[in-house]
Amino acid sequence: MRVRRLKWAEEFLGSAEVVVQSPQDIKGNWNTYMNRECIHLEIGSGKGDYWIKMSDMYPDIGWIGMERNESVAAYAVKKSEEAKENRKFIQNEAMHLLDYFDKEIDAIHLNFSDPWPKKRTTKRRLSHGNFTSIYKQILKDDGELHMKTDNSALFEYSVVNILKEGFSIEELCVDFRRETHDEDAISEYEQKFMNKGNPIYRAVFKKVKEEN
Amino acid sequence: MRVRRLKWAEEFLGSAEVVVQSPQDIKGNWNTYMNRECIHLEIGSGKGDYWIKMSDMYPDIGWIGMERNESVAAYAVKKSEEAKENRKFIQNEAMHLLDYFDKEIDAIHLNFSDPWPKKRTTKRRLSHGNFTSIYKQILKDDGELHMKTDNSALFEYSVVNILKEGFSIEELCVDFRRETHDEDAISEYEQKFMNKGNPIYRAVFKKVKEEN
Repeated sequence: MRVRRLKWAEEFLGSAEVVVQSPQDIKGNWNTYMNRECIHLEIGSGKGDYWIKMSDMYPDIGWIGMERNESVAAYAVKKSEEAKENRKFIQNEAMHLLDYFDKEIDAIHLNFSDPWPKKRTTKRRLSHGNFTSIYKQILKDDGELHMKTDNSALFEYSVVNILKEGFSIEELCVDFRRETHDEDAISEYEQKFMNKGNPIYRAVFKKVKEEN
Repeated sequence: MRVRRLKWAEEFLGSAEVVVQSPQDIKGNWNTYMNRECIHLEIGSGKGDYWIKMSDMYPDIGWIGMERNESVAAYAVKKSEEAKENRKFIQNEAMHLLDYFDKEIDAIHLNFSDPWPKKRTTKRRLSHGNFTSIYKQILKDDGELHMKTDNSALFEYSVVNILKEGFSIEELCVDFRRETHDEDAISEYEQKFMNKGNPIYRAVFKKVKEEN
């Protein structure tokens, strides 16, 4: 999503209570830090709708939102308003995940990620092997990777690629909103595609145990 | 597909040149019998459109059509008209595949299979483990399983299930006819769904080598 650069973003993010300023200091201790046994991480939270709604819906789970774009992140954090014990935010690139996390995440969520449709930008897709190899290192055994998108080409690429990179598939939906799924929050962004009548694609993967 | 029972079907199938009357006698020798190095098998050929068109398009491949319903099979065989070296037909249930084939099939095709939507009829789906375990025994190493359907629920079930049953995924399409695919024949049945604007789902799986 393209947004105007917000001048107040940097200062705001540097002082907002929900933003984790030094996530590297918490590496290995997220369960304790958030006082939750189960930690979910959304990568590419955009304006934060999903992250906020899900952390409200599932108070027993620690929800970490992550967004690299400073201005977009500022929107998300502003929308979050109150700081909650089970809701934290990191503004940075997914490439830094290994600095922030040990094998301590229960589920990673990728929602409506940038499709990077051109062949030469394939490596930037959040379902590319460069990223999935990182996901495997921060997910607990049996940790899950949840993906939702309206982009059919990204979905097709991602399912085939993620399955080649050491994950198994648990669920596949080619029209997720064909049925009501009250257990899963609908962001404004997702609602926009639903209003157009576009199918929402979804898949859930599980990390395959490494052989020793 | 529901069709009127054809009185002439049994006699016709018993004498048509394209129909293999005793497929069990050819077990292990299909390459020689069809004089082709590569053998494709369509299970549930219906009225035979795909089987006929593909065997015309790919004369170097041996194409075996299979349909259990006698009357539907009779339609398919009648439509085939001339017998061709690379085109053969078997009228029987998929459950008999092991009587007819050794590990000698290069690719199995499932096109618009009966979705058997009710939970208690799951076992009848051609992507159920009862069938995929048979497919693995008649497919060569690296043999492929190709699936096409308009039925989203069958597709979702099949992808997850087939991947659990010893196949890997090579291709996934959630809207196969979004692009022109001249390499793949369109049956009347498929055209009907395309005319309605329904997406055609497609996946290609590869048999995973067994550990010894």
